[in-house]
Amino acid sequence: MIAKLSQLFVRTLREDPADAEVPSHRWLVRAGYIRRAAPGVYSWLPLGLKVLEKVERIIREEMNAIGAQEVRFPALLPREPYEATGRWTDYGDNLFRVVDRKGTDMLLGPTHEEMFTLMVKDLYKSYKDLPLSLYQIQTKYRDEARPRAGLLRGREFIMKDSYSFDVDDAGLEASYQLHRTAYTRIFERLGLEFVIVSAMAGAMGGSRSEEFLAVAANGEDTFVRSPGGYTANVEAVRVAAPAELPIDNAPAMAVVETPDAGSIEAVVEILNRDFPERTWTGADTLKNVLFMVTEPDGTKRPLAVGLPGDREVDAKRLEAALEPAVAEVFGEEDFKKFPDLVVGFMSPVSIDGTRVLGKESSTKIEYLVDPRIVTGTHWVTGANVKDQHLSGVTMGRDFTADGILDVADVRQGDPAPDGSGPLALARGIEMGHIFQLGRKYAEALGLKVLDENGKLVTVTMGSYGVGVSRAVAAVAEATSDDKGLSWPVSLAPYQVHVIATGKDVEVFVEAQRIAEELDARGLDVLLDDRKASPGVKFADSEIMGMPIIVVVGRGLADGVVELRTRATGDKREVPVSGIVTEVVALAAAGGQQA
Amino acid sequence: MIAKLSQLFVRTLREDPADAEVPSHRWLVRAGYIRRAAPGVYSWLPLGLKVLEKVERIIREEMNAIGAQEVRFPALLPREPYEATGRWTDYGDNLFRVVDRKGTDMLLGPTHEEMFTLMVKDLYKSYKDLPLSLYQIQTKYRDEARPRAGLLRGREFIMKDSYSFDVDDAGLEASYQLHRTAYTRIFERLGLEFVIVSAMAGAMGGSRSEEFLAVAANGEDTFVRSPGGYTANVEAVRVAAPAELPIDNAPAMAVVETPDAGSIEAVVEILNRDFPERTWTGADTLKNVLFMVTEPDGTKRPLAVGLPGDREVDAKRLEAALEPAVAEVFGEEDFKKFPDLVVGFMSPVSIDGTRVLGKESSTKIEYLVDPRIVTGTHWVTGANVKDQHLSGVTMGRDFTADGILDVADVRQGDPAPDGSGPLALARGIEMGHIFQLGRKYAEALGLKVLDENGKLVTVTMGSYGVGVSRAVAAVAEATSDDKGLSWPVSLAPYQVHVIATGKDVEVFVEAQRIAEELDARGLDVLLDDRKASPGVKFADSEIMGMPIIVVVGRGLADGVVELRTRATGDKREVPVSGIVTEVVALAAAGGQQA
Repeated sequence: MIAKLSQLFVRTLREDPADAEVPSHRWLVRAGYIRRAAPGVYSWLPLGLKVLEKVERIIREEMNAIGAQEVRFPALLPREPYEATGRWTDYGDNLFRVVDRKGTDMLLGPTHEEMFTLMVKDLYKSYKDLPLSLYQIQTKYRDEARPRAGLLRGREFIMKDSYSFDVDDAGLEASYQLHRTAYTRIFERLGLEFVIVSAMAGAMGGSRSEEFLAVAANGEDTFVRSPGGYTANVEAVRVAAPAELPIDNAPAMAVVETPDAGSIEAVVEILNRDFPERTWTGADTLKNVLFMVTEPDGTKRPLAVGLPGDREVDAKRLEAALEPAVAEVFGEEDFKKFPDLVVGFMSPVSIDGTRVLGKESSTKIEYLVDPRIVTGTHWVTGANVKDQHLSGVTMGRDFTADGILDVADVRQGDPAPDGSGPLALARGIEMGHIFQLGRKYAEALGLKVLDENGKLVTVTMGSYGVGVSRAVAAVAEATSDDKGLSWPVSLAPYQVHVIATGKDVEVFVEAQRIAEELDARGLDVLLDDRKASPGVKFADSEIMGMPIIVVVGRGLADGVVELRTRATGDKREVPVSGIVTEVVALAAAGGQQA
Repeated sequence: MIAKLSQLFVRTLREDPADAEVPSHRWLVRAGYIRRAAPGVYSWLPLGLKVLEKVERIIREEMNAIGAQEVRFPALLPREPYEATGRWTDYGDNLFRVVDRKGTDMLLGPTHEEMFTLMVKDLYKSYKDLPLSLYQIQTKYRDEARPRAGLLRGREFIMKDSYSFDVDDAGLEASYQLHRTAYTRIFERLGLEFVIVSAMAGAMGGSRSEEFLAVAANGEDTFVRSPGGYTANVEAVRVAAPAELPIDNAPAMAVVETPDAGSIEAVVEILNRDFPERTWTGADTLKNVLFMVTEPDGTKRPLAVGLPGDREVDAKRLEAALEPAVAEVFGEEDFKKFPDLVVGFMSPVSIDGTRVLGKESSTKIEYLVDPRIVTGTHWVTGANVKDQHLSGVTMGRDFTADGILDVADVRQGDPAPDGSGPLALARGIEMGHIFQLGRKYAEALGLKVLDENGKLVTVTMGSYGVGVSRAVAAVAEATSDDKGLSWPVSLAPYQVHVIATGKDVEVFVEAQRIAEELDARGLDVLLDDRKASPGVKFADSEIMGMPIIVVVGRGLADGVVELRTRATGDKREVPVSGIVTEVVALAAAGGQQA
């Protein structure tokens, strides 16, 4: 196929779009691949659509290879199934809701677990029908609070979602592994550097889930890696609890005068000044943070979180832990309802032993603590009296918690949960997410089949997603440079960009001839046949990012053309007679010059 | 590609779905091609999706062949552009409206004129950039009052929409003709019997439009054909006005006593009884029908329509003529507001010459008449007095109208507007619609380019649609029979259906081998390898409708298999050694047995 730039519906922009935060967004817009239609909603121009189709083809091939069957569900969906699973409420403001002319509630599908479950219930009755994997490549809708970064976080986007159906746990595990393998192949073929990390199932429910993250400095997700190979999304990191200590060895509670010391730093300064026999750090203190938690149905409840004073509550880890509920830090009005709490000097216990935090305490506020706060550990914390703290406040003796909440920030160098050494932190873009859902959806919607003994059993499910439009941006993010896009041969809208320079008719004729020969050899060719200066043409070719560039110009008189490689910037002269063979070989080698 | 029925996600149904009105709906559901997700909203199962993809491929090829470039716009769109063209209001209840979490009004696109206009405005500046044709294959939304007939009239559906942009009228005409040619090829390749008829532009606006209708007994649209080749959608039929008559020859107005004659029939009976010198029919009477018209913005106005008494106002022709306004027949409450009107005896004029209907009359109700009511024609109509009519009521002497409204029903045998003889009526399914929009959208949204003289000129546009999901149903409607679906080779999900019957292992092995050979020859093969009775397998093959069926069974012992043609029901025995060659030849011949 040959496309002529004189006719192709594309214009490059000299300026960055005002809202572009990341390179993929900037260059996809500037190179004329996409345009914004509304916040988080994009149109695909011819060049962008071609990349999207190539990504879709790779995904289809790999899904078909594991025996998954393609279907297509609507985006406009009835409320009832989402009501049955609770997601109509749980999704909250993230769901686009639609009321039709008859007043019926509908929604724009954010993901289709319910619909697939009902479809399989409609068609299948027996264990003999399973295992089954179905997939679709389809447009999804989520009313993101902060759509950003172009295609990376949109409100209308294209996803490949698949769902597996098995009669037992072993079957689910096998289906899950098949998808894991297919995803690995997909992201390898997309040329992405990626990691597979443990993740939280979140609102989706289910027991086990992993994310495929494209490693990217601008990624929204943070993940950890240990020397021993442990990897996890930062939300999913589980801090290893230290060994419990004997309570008998713990010092007695004592009051420490801490005038005006409403911060951990101020308390630590006083401790080091007044008790110089050892060095005190924030890690010796117990910080208590209060949140007001709002459930999806609107009910509110307070929550206290205790964690070592050198740590912060990580907003994303907290969000993931409480999902679908949402937490906000206590405000003044909230504190007014609990006069027992002394801001800046809060504690789970008072010097007289009265419990202040916890379901059994005077405030009755649920109290959850960091995994590091185990029985026998003792802490400096508030005294519930202004300008006083307590030392020797011992877990299991002076206070207890209603449970564990593992939401403190994770830091570079923290000990890895697998004990293999320090954690390294990096950022990534979530490209895929695979879930072992288990029986949550099948139970809610009554998907059962007859087993070998003629007994009805509930089906167990997996759910698997790939961000398709996001993949286009992720590849652009990984491959673009300071001049523009730079596609791998496998995804480029056109593998070769032939540029005719100057005004010499022969040059244009020869460029056209080379393009036709390349086309005949099965390559997709973009031909710059415009009346424009070489500078404009070269700059456009760099912005648009086709991997192989052939410049036909003055050298033609000497029988040579120039062969450029976009990614490396390599340029060399090649005899006209050999250019087609060279380009074909280069394309076959994935654009890598020998 | 080989798909095994033992694994394919499909189940046929023994019973018709309760809501199925037409064969395509019944069989697509029963054969496991589609399932309803909500009223007018369907999911595609693997078999259905394959047909859909083949239809899409044909459309893409023909659109690319006329140089149209593929893009893809979102379905979730901002309100503003639709506000600018008035369609936010004009579409009324047909538009799915969405309010996002920030309270911003959005909509689900019913068609994308506004978005394409803005995109071209964004990218193009000069007449040199034109002509341009862009298209997309994309999901559309319309909140139909009466979604029906499965895929034929849905609320979520797939459309190919394209838009042409030209600098002048001649360019628009050329772009329009290119699309007309492409559409002709598309519907020919889909194997549909179709007609191209003149149509109304309707809410879309613009000067000229034609519809491509698939001829179908169950079609929603009625169209007319004349012996001379005139064709039109019934909404677009323009009745030829007869020659005016000299007013001097008209008889004087006279009162006719018509006790209790509130209907045309009763009046005609009295006329024939009391004035037997000639034969009277309904065509001698003038019927006046009152409507309350509601504009999209909610304002209401009365409208009187005068037409020959043997005709009815055709609801669809009236709807098309008034669009986007909506008309309802006057109710009791409406009549109360106009005491001058005597129900059953209405007239544009009273015996004393007082005008009763018309903007200048006592009621000030706008009065529009059928084209047949020309100056000099005289009529029997009401007297605006109970139990009295007037004869000799003459157009241009006793009454006038505010204009023409051509909305009387069109009948088989009516004289054709082209004067070539009587009209024939038939029904069809609207498959495509092409519009010369002109400058309506470009003007509303400011799409101008510099012309050859450096002057800004407004671009002129065309808009062209094909119902893609509807095409799947239209082909099913045309090809299915009393046993099930019956696809042409070009659109069948699988060209060949190989059935292994009985329990003989060798039969299954041979069926598999034949399937593999056919696959190697480039055919898509469905292999029925299930443990099921031959009766079940044969019935399923008839419902599912693959064009070529190979039955491998007992005959195998004698070296023969059976070759069936679904469309004709032909069966014959073929030596196993020759079956692959026979099937390949049959498929190449489009499934027609020699």
